Amino acid sequence: MTSSIPPGTVDTSALTFDELQLATRNHGMPLEALRYELTPVGLHYLLVHYDIPAVDPATWRLQVGGLVATPLELSLDDLRRHDPVTVAVTMECAGNGRARLHPRPVSQPWLYEAVGTAEWTGVPLTAVLSDAGVDDRAIEVVFTGADRGHEGGVEQRYQRSLRLDQALAEETLLAYELNGQPLPPQHGAPLRLVVPGWYGMTNVKWLTDIDAVDTPFDGYQQATAYRWRTDPEEAGEPLRHMAVRSLMVPPGIPDFLTRRRRVTPGACELFGRAWSGTAPIIRVELSVDDGVTWHDADLEASVGRFAWTGWRRTWQAEPGEHVLCCRATDADGRTQPLEHPWNLGGYAVNTVHRVPVTVEP
Amino acid sequence: MTSSIPPGTVDTSALTFDELQLATRNHGMPLEALRYELTPVGLHYLLVHYDIPAVDPATWRLQVGGLVATPLELSLDDLRRHDPVTVAVTMECAGNGRARLHPRPVSQPWLYEAVGTAEWTGVPLTAVLSDAGVDDRAIEVVFTGADRGHEGGVEQRYQRSLRLDQALAEETLLAYELNGQPLPPQHGAPLRLVVPGWYGMTNVKWLTDIDAVDTPFDGYQQATAYRWRTDPEEAGEPLRHMAVRSLMVPPGIPDFLTRRRRVTPGACELFGRAWSGTAPIIRVELSVDDGVTWHDADLEASVGRFAWTGWRRTWQAEPGEHVLCCRATDADGRTQPLEHPWNLGGYAVNTVHRVPVTVEP
Repeated sequence: MTSSIPPGTVDTSALTFDELQLATRNHGMPLEALRYELTPVGLHYLLVHYDIPAVDPATWRLQVGGLVATPLELSLDDLRRHDPVTVAVTMECAGNGRARLHPRPVSQPWLYEAVGTAEWTGVPLTAVLSDAGVDDRAIEVVFTGADRGHEGGVEQRYQRSLRLDQALAEETLLAYELNGQPLPPQHGAPLRLVVPGWYGMTNVKWLTDIDAVDTPFDGYQQATAYRWRTDPEEAGEPLRHMAVRSLMVPPGIPDFLTRRRRVTPGACELFGRAWSGTAPIIRVELSVDDGVTWHDADLEASVGRFAWTGWRRTWQAEPGEHVLCCRATDADGRTQPLEHPWNLGGYAVNTVHRVPVTVEP
Repeated sequence: MTSSIPPGTVDTSALTFDELQLATRNHGMPLEALRYELTPVGLHYLLVHYDIPAVDPATWRLQVGGLVATPLELSLDDLRRHDPVTVAVTMECAGNGRARLHPRPVSQPWLYEAVGTAEWTGVPLTAVLSDAGVDDRAIEVVFTGADRGHEGGVEQRYQRSLRLDQALAEETLLAYELNGQPLPPQHGAPLRLVVPGWYGMTNVKWLTDIDAVDTPFDGYQQATAYRWRTDPEEAGEPLRHMAVRSLMVPPGIPDFLTRRRRVTPGACELFGRAWSGTAPIIRVELSVDDGVTWHDADLEASVGRFAWTGWRRTWQAEPGEHVLCCRATDADGRTQPLEHPWNLGGYAVNTVHRVPVTVEP
């Protein structure tokens, strides 16, 4: 059995026990689940920074405070009194692809699979902020989750902020349902933030507090983590919207251990999905010769402006070894790179998806 | 930060890319989810041997054949015409704990987390076999899933068998619901086998065929995999019922990267669950000094005879480094071992759960 990995492309020289512990508790989306336009509960990717907290929805309250005219304490019933909004959102972990980098940043070791698309239902954040009356001095809104742990030497609850204009975007949601069901515990029950188009870390789970503030938030998850740096001395650029990216359902059947694919000769329908946090997908190209030549795939209609776009193309598979690749381009003209965009945290690694396959005679 | 792993206890010298690929697509249950008597969908462990197959429930049929008087072709509606039965079942992967062995068998690298408890609803297998009329010559029943792949050099659909008497056990179920909802794709939709008390590999997902046969089934998953061997030349003993085991919710709060726990001094309620595939849990003991001394925990009533038993004990946490351990004993007198029961496949590793914690001054 050939290894499923082209030589030299992955740094596995020192995969650590810490990484294994993270990989066994965080969940990737098996790539064949790209077939579902909406990812079934339990197949959506899941990253839990600390522990899933025990939150009793009956006694839980959301505190809305800081620089507001009327601080609010809201129950789930209070939130449900607003007209509900449902948005289909493709969400990807900022660290997706990290474990393919050379050298490999040591953290949750995602390869390709930290993504999913769900329909989130809830109340627009702007409606709640409007009820509270945000003060003119406020420049950011800070979101605090119930999950608590140590990271980078700092004890913290998970916290992130948005600039006020980002918080007031009409699509920013306080979500209490996932795919038409109450939020499951692992996705932030009873309430989470959903900011369509942004990387996963933005979407604070198990929300307890929303605070309007007049200084830029400098908590660990904002000022230290989730920044694009190539040198530890840099302040770095904050990660925000998802980079353009595509993935394919690996064709044929796998070997259990190596996941290497075997395909029968003849017409082979290749299918996948593509997304970008900033603009619609306008093109997906497929290569069956490891990126030497590229051919346009057909695009499907997306389930929504913040959700992925399906693509397909038939390949006439001939016996031999092949490396299939897909790459997407968005309406801003951004295209996936062939080489890994290396950075210290292993963020936004949107390199083309490469799938080695064996076509059997 | 101290490593979360006692020195020398885990073999991470050559964690392979193949293992990482498996770990990113198969899902463990984060240990804090032990708090749920029934594991929420998406937190139950998940092992998919090959790919989750695309099965259309509308056109799907179950074929019941082989040595039967009346071969059957059943739709989901046909199966739903039988009186439904619901059973709460704790299910564990036979390979749970494999990655803690020295040397480490290379396969899905579970540490502790390949377990979950669900309520499965369906029709007793015995009712369907009775409708078909099993021939007197039959000695086994073979179950075939829709999932297909290569393993150990053999192309196969996933198949396992039960002895006829095991198949006819009243609790053996053909399940079409999980926790009161239609089976999700990843758990075997539209129909799977559930054999309470047995390791996970028994519970064939995406069932398409049930065949009564008059010779022992010698397919790969029965005759080659899932056997207890310490030498590759041995035929080995087949894995069947789950060994006695307990786990605890790691107390305190974690460090993101190392998962090392920090606990505040004072009364600390320790909680976990215990199970055995063959007999009720009659005792769970807790050690706060790495197994030197042991103290009985209080047991809770179980949600059912095939489901785990909760346990709890309050610990007066004093500043310093501690290793917490739990170990269960079942009514057959079986107790979890302190040393790993090494075997080639890394099966049934039911060593006591050890949780290093730091109590801060």
